[in-house]
Amino acid sequence: MAISYREAGVDIDRGDELVRRIKPLANGTRTPFVLDGIGGFAGLCGLPSGLEEPVLVSGTDGVGTKLKIAFETNVHNTVGQDLVAMCVNDVATTGGRLLFFLDYFGCGKLDVTVAEAVISGIADGCKLAGCALLGGETAELPGMYAPNEYDLAGFAVGVVSKKAILGPNRVSVGDELVAVASSGLHSNGYSLARRVLQQEMKLALDAHVPELGKTLGEELLTPTRIYTAEIQSTLEAHPDTVHAICHVTGGGIVGNLNRALGKHQQARVNMTHERPAVFQLIAKGGPVEESEMLRTFNLGIGLVLCVKAGTGDTVAAHLNALGERAWVAGVVEPCPDETPIVVINE
Amino acid sequence: MAISYREAGVDIDRGDELVRRIKPLANGTRTPFVLDGIGGFAGLCGLPSGLEEPVLVSGTDGVGTKLKIAFETNVHNTVGQDLVAMCVNDVATTGGRLLFFLDYFGCGKLDVTVAEAVISGIADGCKLAGCALLGGETAELPGMYAPNEYDLAGFAVGVVSKKAILGPNRVSVGDELVAVASSGLHSNGYSLARRVLQQEMKLALDAHVPELGKTLGEELLTPTRIYTAEIQSTLEAHPDTVHAICHVTGGGIVGNLNRALGKHQQARVNMTHERPAVFQLIAKGGPVEESEMLRTFNLGIGLVLCVKAGTGDTVAAHLNALGERAWVAGVVEPCPDETPIVVINE
Repeated sequence: MAISYREAGVDIDRGDELVRRIKPLANGTRTPFVLDGIGGFAGLCGLPSGLEEPVLVSGTDGVGTKLKIAFETNVHNTVGQDLVAMCVNDVATTGGRLLFFLDYFGCGKLDVTVAEAVISGIADGCKLAGCALLGGETAELPGMYAPNEYDLAGFAVGVVSKKAILGPNRVSVGDELVAVASSGLHSNGYSLARRVLQQEMKLALDAHVPELGKTLGEELLTPTRIYTAEIQSTLEAHPDTVHAICHVTGGGIVGNLNRALGKHQQARVNMTHERPAVFQLIAKGGPVEESEMLRTFNLGIGLVLCVKAGTGDTVAAHLNALGERAWVAGVVEPCPDETPIVVINE
Repeated sequence: MAISYREAGVDIDRGDELVRRIKPLANGTRTPFVLDGIGGFAGLCGLPSGLEEPVLVSGTDGVGTKLKIAFETNVHNTVGQDLVAMCVNDVATTGGRLLFFLDYFGCGKLDVTVAEAVISGIADGCKLAGCALLGGETAELPGMYAPNEYDLAGFAVGVVSKKAILGPNRVSVGDELVAVASSGLHSNGYSLARRVLQQEMKLALDAHVPELGKTLGEELLTPTRIYTAEIQSTLEAHPDTVHAICHVTGGGIVGNLNRALGKHQQARVNMTHERPAVFQLIAKGGPVEESEMLRTFNLGIGLVLCVKAGTGDTVAAHLNALGERAWVAGVVEPCPDETPIVVINE
């Protein structure tokens, strides 16, 4: 009896069916720069014209164990936005304009309906970020993933004029720090959040949690905010004002904001804003110590802009007018040591 | 008793240790286009100057269950080349020059030594492909992967002048097909190969297999060939000769070569070359039918170049002089149907 690839666990026809279903989703993200849709061996994307010394900006990330919440609730159409957000926000910190995105979807046995839901979320995220879903890989790896589980990796590419690249070399002592609210946990710290909320506190994902005003599953699946359009708008409306941008991800504000600073600089940040309820729930429910909360979660601040002294309120007002929640949360100070650090005002 | 992120299964210090170890590996792949010292959240890469209407070319892929062989043999420094090869060969089919690569490494619990070995292989692959390892993500997802297992995703970006993009629109009836030898299975069809060789034939990975002249593990971990330098050399030495290039991956030659053809064209391919022993072993050991072999494996042909009529021998000779094994294996014919197909001469 002859053996086929399908019997070995890989169904090429199922893969082809998925490609057929996601083609319109990807086409819906097309930008004027895309030369070809999905198909061929590689994705093709032109560059905006008139950009002096264009520099490509790229980032890759995953969603972490936030995926476990999607598996447990069987809701698969939101983690795609998380995947896009984690990558494009990183790219946008350089001042770069997003061009395109590619995704990797790995699973043990391909469920076309689940994969289509995931990729529809990725396409939604790409539209929010203004970038084209230019390609992707769906891999069926029998025996590598638990049934009904998958992993995701995303890749984003943008472009920026060399002379417009934001970063530590532009930051000065006296710069103000504008905090922009996160939408919740975003996509970091889920292993700790799940451990506390689900194991220690024994909260069910479908249980309504009064402190959250929604079910735990809804809270934990809230998509990571995509800040790309708001960043571009701010850069255009207030030229030469934003010096560096920090995307608050794994490591929290203390593990990320230092990466936006120059030598002998420290960021002094007020953490006096009211933290979203989910963070209070985790801190109390663990309990989880404040230092651990600070280096694991965003604690309500998803993005920090280092802006020219005296412009913090103006930049915050611009972001608030765009529908963000932004406020001046600190300042850049001299640091006795060369290595930049973040100092928290409790 | 307070709960920490580490107790929840994620050790940021372990991640930092890995970053410290892979930094010199990534630095070893630097190209003149990489910008450093600015921007800590995203990778920055300039473009070659003087390129008329530059178009970005991108591809993403994984290694599939070839990873299982790495897990079972505990040899982790070769699959990185596979990851790079799968992506960069796709990019190179457009005629594009490689710029940079990013990787995603997902695991349940990070083993710094294993991850370092994997990423050293990725860095080796990047050097072969002439592209910079510009960044990556190492994700620890407790409970998502089996102990000592991981998944990989790769992402490559290149650039090509718009007027130099290779593809179906350049291919004419009468074009010759130059086959370039693969190094073995490359990174496709491993679920079927493992099923036949390990389960049906019960061959051990450390057993010497006379037909192969090596152990099964050595055969199955042979890295996927990276063709980027040879493709660029051919394009430079023989301008306006290569019309399209096919990277033979999942789907085999019948599922890929058609993607290099225009409407109403078919590729007639001679499969009379001696196939590498591993394919003969699988076909006999399954048994696996010829049609299934054709649509699952590369069967000894890793790349096909569609070249101008009358230039096949010249192009093959150029590739042979570079150390490849290349031969004229077919021709492009008119096809009665609009949809291009591949016809095999047995």
